[in-house]
Amino acid sequence: MLGIAPALLSLLRINVPDPSASPAIIPERLERQMRFLIEADKLKEVFRQSLVTQSRRRENSAEHSWHFALMVATLAEHSNHQPLDVLRILKMVLIHDLVEIDAGDTYAYDVANQAAQHEREARAADRIFGLLPADQAADFRALWDEFEARQTPEARFAAACDRFHPMLLNCLTGGVTWRAHGVTYEKVVARNAHAAEGSQTIWAYALRMIDEAAARGDLPHG
Amino acid sequence: MLGIAPALLSLLRINVPDPSASPAIIPERLERQMRFLIEADKLKEVFRQSLVTQSRRRENSAEHSWHFALMVATLAEHSNHQPLDVLRILKMVLIHDLVEIDAGDTYAYDVANQAAQHEREARAADRIFGLLPADQAADFRALWDEFEARQTPEARFAAACDRFHPMLLNCLTGGVTWRAHGVTYEKVVARNAHAAEGSQTIWAYALRMIDEAAARGDLPHG
Repeated sequence: MLGIAPALLSLLRINVPDPSASPAIIPERLERQMRFLIEADKLKEVFRQSLVTQSRRRENSAEHSWHFALMVATLAEHSNHQPLDVLRILKMVLIHDLVEIDAGDTYAYDVANQAAQHEREARAADRIFGLLPADQAADFRALWDEFEARQTPEARFAAACDRFHPMLLNCLTGGVTWRAHGVTYEKVVARNAHAAEGSQTIWAYALRMIDEAAARGDLPHG
Repeated sequence: MLGIAPALLSLLRINVPDPSASPAIIPERLERQMRFLIEADKLKEVFRQSLVTQSRRRENSAEHSWHFALMVATLAEHSNHQPLDVLRILKMVLIHDLVEIDAGDTYAYDVANQAAQHEREARAADRIFGLLPADQAADFRALWDEFEARQTPEARFAAACDRFHPMLLNCLTGGVTWRAHGVTYEKVVARNAHAAEGSQTIWAYALRMIDEAAARGDLPHG
């Protein structure tokens, strides 16, 4: 027990306007932002095909989003295009997978499900970003659309890291996921080669990495 | 099988310098950055006291870092201090818990372990940021020191969200963690009141939230 006296408690609150006295202090705007942040917690339950390197359980999309964002912050100098608006990329990365709360994760090599994927995800974007105040909903939706369209230098660099991240985890965990889904070296190259539009350096690293995985027998040719 | 011919494969690589022909393409610098990013994967195995809202399992520090970063991107307008360098805050947030890979997570109300916490974490920062190229190691270390010192507007706003995030999860999961550790309303206020230095708005919201938790019996006074 800290035994804090009511007087100290009021001191601790001294600079804080009393919300009951002034309802405008916690406006509808903040309530909407909180509703969005609470909804976002569900991304921690969306599991991907990739395995984490230590316990080798499946990675969830919240962890992926963090690791992906850290990758952007660390590797931004390797973008083909400079200068780069790294803040815009980080925002894109932080929100890019929220649509999976409704639409689920679609495996990169699951061609059957990819056809309807964008439509499912666009409906999810409407609902989830729609929890926010209108201006912020529009901002986040524009960032998500930019990420999906892969036309700007920022979106291309984000896409390079997004493609690279699961390749890295696969190479570090013996290619188990690739082999479980019958994914070949050639499929990996075809699916991920657009990473070079964002960063030739990262794509060159990726190619060396999967060459080594193939040499170890972790990623069959075919 | 996609049946991609070798000719198409070389086309896909057309803009990519051949790393074997030119070893400078994958320099020591990139190798060090990759070593850091691979090490970072271990944060997905560091579990906190907070529960996630859906399955009610314990949250790990990688997920926390993502949710915390999303919170900063969403709530930055509520900082006491404007303008704010949101990019610097997001970088701080993405790296702030990496020290836990060596030092473990220290529960906010674990006074016994907090005494040695900073020393343990500083040693971890030396090792983990030291994996990076020297200039980047110094940058990330400076960000971590800034976050820990809580003196700049950016670090204060980050601290406000870092304190608020577990309070939010606790309130959404019936206060189980608080009650398991004998944490009282007064301890929560004393431990987290510095959030008001970063955002009076967020702290006002937090106070209303824990008042409601106390009224429900999820957070005892005492």
